[in-house]
Amino acid sequence: MFNRILVANRGEIALRVIRACHDLGIEAVAVYSEADRGAPWLDFADQAVCIGPAVSAQSYLNIPRIIATAEKTGAQAIHPGYGFLSENSKFAEQCRDSGIEFIGPPVGAMDRLGNKDKSKTVARAAKVPTVPGSDGLVETEEQAKKFANMVGYPVLVKASAGGGGRGMRVARDDASLATGLSAARAEAEAAFKDGSVFLEKYLDRPRHVEVQLIGDQHGNVIHLFERDCSLQRRHQKLVEESPSPNLPDSVRQEMCAAAVRLAKEAGYYNAGTCEFLVDQQNNYYFIEVNARVQVEHPVTELVTGVDVIREQIRVAAGEKLRYEQKDVQQRGHAIEVRINAEDPAHDFRPSAGTVKTWRPPGGPGVRIDSHVCAGYRVPPNYDSMVAKLLVHQPTRAEAFAVMRRCLREFVVEGIHTTIPILKTIFDNEDFIAGNVDTTYIERVMMPPKVS
Amino acid sequence: MFNRILVANRGEIALRVIRACHDLGIEAVAVYSEADRGAPWLDFADQAVCIGPAVSAQSYLNIPRIIATAEKTGAQAIHPGYGFLSENSKFAEQCRDSGIEFIGPPVGAMDRLGNKDKSKTVARAAKVPTVPGSDGLVETEEQAKKFANMVGYPVLVKASAGGGGRGMRVARDDASLATGLSAARAEAEAAFKDGSVFLEKYLDRPRHVEVQLIGDQHGNVIHLFERDCSLQRRHQKLVEESPSPNLPDSVRQEMCAAAVRLAKEAGYYNAGTCEFLVDQQNNYYFIEVNARVQVEHPVTELVTGVDVIREQIRVAAGEKLRYEQKDVQQRGHAIEVRINAEDPAHDFRPSAGTVKTWRPPGGPGVRIDSHVCAGYRVPPNYDSMVAKLLVHQPTRAEAFAVMRRCLREFVVEGIHTTIPILKTIFDNEDFIAGNVDTTYIERVMMPPKVS
Repeated sequence: MFNRILVANRGEIALRVIRACHDLGIEAVAVYSEADRGAPWLDFADQAVCIGPAVSAQSYLNIPRIIATAEKTGAQAIHPGYGFLSENSKFAEQCRDSGIEFIGPPVGAMDRLGNKDKSKTVARAAKVPTVPGSDGLVETEEQAKKFANMVGYPVLVKASAGGGGRGMRVARDDASLATGLSAARAEAEAAFKDGSVFLEKYLDRPRHVEVQLIGDQHGNVIHLFERDCSLQRRHQKLVEESPSPNLPDSVRQEMCAAAVRLAKEAGYYNAGTCEFLVDQQNNYYFIEVNARVQVEHPVTELVTGVDVIREQIRVAAGEKLRYEQKDVQQRGHAIEVRINAEDPAHDFRPSAGTVKTWRPPGGPGVRIDSHVCAGYRVPPNYDSMVAKLLVHQPTRAEAFAVMRRCLREFVVEGIHTTIPILKTIFDNEDFIAGNVDTTYIERVMMPPKVS
Repeated sequence: MFNRILVANRGEIALRVIRACHDLGIEAVAVYSEADRGAPWLDFADQAVCIGPAVSAQSYLNIPRIIATAEKTGAQAIHPGYGFLSENSKFAEQCRDSGIEFIGPPVGAMDRLGNKDKSKTVARAAKVPTVPGSDGLVETEEQAKKFANMVGYPVLVKASAGGGGRGMRVARDDASLATGLSAARAEAEAAFKDGSVFLEKYLDRPRHVEVQLIGDQHGNVIHLFERDCSLQRRHQKLVEESPSPNLPDSVRQEMCAAAVRLAKEAGYYNAGTCEFLVDQQNNYYFIEVNARVQVEHPVTELVTGVDVIREQIRVAAGEKLRYEQKDVQQRGHAIEVRINAEDPAHDFRPSAGTVKTWRPPGGPGVRIDSHVCAGYRVPPNYDSMVAKLLVHQPTRAEAFAVMRRCLREFVVEGIHTTIPILKTIFDNEDFIAGNVDTTYIERVMMPPKVS
């Protein structure tokens, strides 16, 4: 086992990793930018080293500086957290070339899963369903209809040069497919001077369900069940829960098995997440792998009892997984909300500043992962998340009740937070019934303002 | 279900009960003494009523005042917490006579279990082992030897008028029994002018193991497994854990079943604890019932996932238990330490005063039950406990590692606490091995100073 680990991150995940190191009897070296000098989580580390100015490119993304700091402090491994360098395979490679273990997947697997196209190839090889698409460009209406009738409506017409929603049409029957094809071609021709299009099955109001994976360097990969992260705003997850509401257990089991197959196909180890979209008929389609620990990993920790960060460290040190698949069970219901320093009354603009009062809630089955305390100055430079609030209760209804109580109890003064929006969300009848999808927040609760 | 509950207690248990009310959608009325005016937990209640001066007899023990406050505020039930009025059957009776539900056991069961002698009678009727004693006074050496040989050495010679350890002798064989008898008689004659003695089996370095019970008003009683609370100083528990280390599972099962039998024999419902001593051969002996929720109930909540306070409220409202015995499992290992505002360097004298810094630890599987925050003034009038720190981990070794880390992380400034002593305890090899008993702290770690 390592004696000393460098934590190449900041904020709550830095504190989370420092604690995991200490729980394993390992020293933790923190690094920080000038903007984070004196930040409270640095007190928890055994030593803290400044690695550059506020701008991430020169500090938290500064590969040579981070590796040099690990070498200087005698750290045998680096935990990258999430974001920053966590999915940078070049960083992983340079760490390992320098004789420092990168606490994450092997470089080969990172590369194979590093973009959506490549990872879909791996998925197909592992017989994991992906969103069906036309085999290349679609030239004629006949070709398009043939595809649409094969995969079933609705289908999406997409400009191959497209972007930002331009050159895109949803077709729900043969007639709208014909008009959609022409419209998409015309729009794409006008916008990109390239009218070529392809087709994809269109998933109507899908849910986002992801499977947590953990593997060792001895060929063992298991899943730690799934999380539902359908409530998103501008592709940012707001709420995550496990188990997924209204997901048939047979589908859950299939998806989890598919994720394990995909990881094995890719030669994956350490922690990772296999993300799927699930349509309203409970068909699931692989979308991508997050080759790192995720913000929402504590949801899984609560329902399974497995400490994901500690397991990451153990398998990075070459240990075998301590759990077989049959040892892992999903118990009770866990929900996480992300509390951001943002002002919901002003289009969620970041709300940097000094926290005057910080009184998080508590009680049985309540967990707060946060680096914040009263007096902490939230810098404007980085991600706005100030806390993850989690509850774990025997049932989903109880989890909702406790979450509502916790959101009422949470007192933050000095900065704006997203707590008011989260309160609204937990009173929403559709969410209470588990009937939401990735489009719900912007479609129903907070439609974007027409400018 | 109740709409409003009065919480007849203070400090962490008041906050714990207020939260449980809110989790169930029930309003909570707090009461407070002048000494607790403005205390932080009162902010969590829906209303707070002053019930008298600092001295408990006139506030937290003031039965007419508390019942009048419940009536005035429209509270349909009273939760007594632990201590204060929680085991006062007259209070329970007066509540119910006033049409207010007392959240606790029935008066009859409280009376039957209210003192050790009476509860032993119930235990015998339920075929629950008690510490064997001579049938009345022992007159002759022959009688004494007969008893000793029947129950096995060591035995304890006790003056029937005794107290404070006077007129007590431990005999480990026939010879020391003869001398012990004369010595105890002489000492008792001198001290109490009454030389009569009786005999009891002496439990050498016993462990304290207690079984958590919960029952409804429909005749259902289940156990929530056991807690080991052997580490005590002056009969005050310092550390509690579940499962009990080094307790054979067959003995655990027998003890838990015995506790349920005893509760049924007594016509018990609501939460309660059946306390046992366990000798070095794993024989167990009933000592008493705590007819209330205990300080250490969260240990059980962590390993079973059952919220004991919420269950108390549910069964008090007449609901059936939501769990059958087979539904309850003991998962992982939980440990609680009690952090008191006391100065270990000065014989644990209470350390009242204003808390300047309060930075509790956190992380996965860590729970803090506390009413304290920075700026809180610990009053000198009441119990000195300022926090319960709990960890829940897959194994006992991991629980110890995380507890050590948490004790290191915990920063309290402005008052003295018992944290330094707890650190010592978690580094103690005997405790790590699970080889401690109720005499350990004072026998080995902190022998009382000879004055």
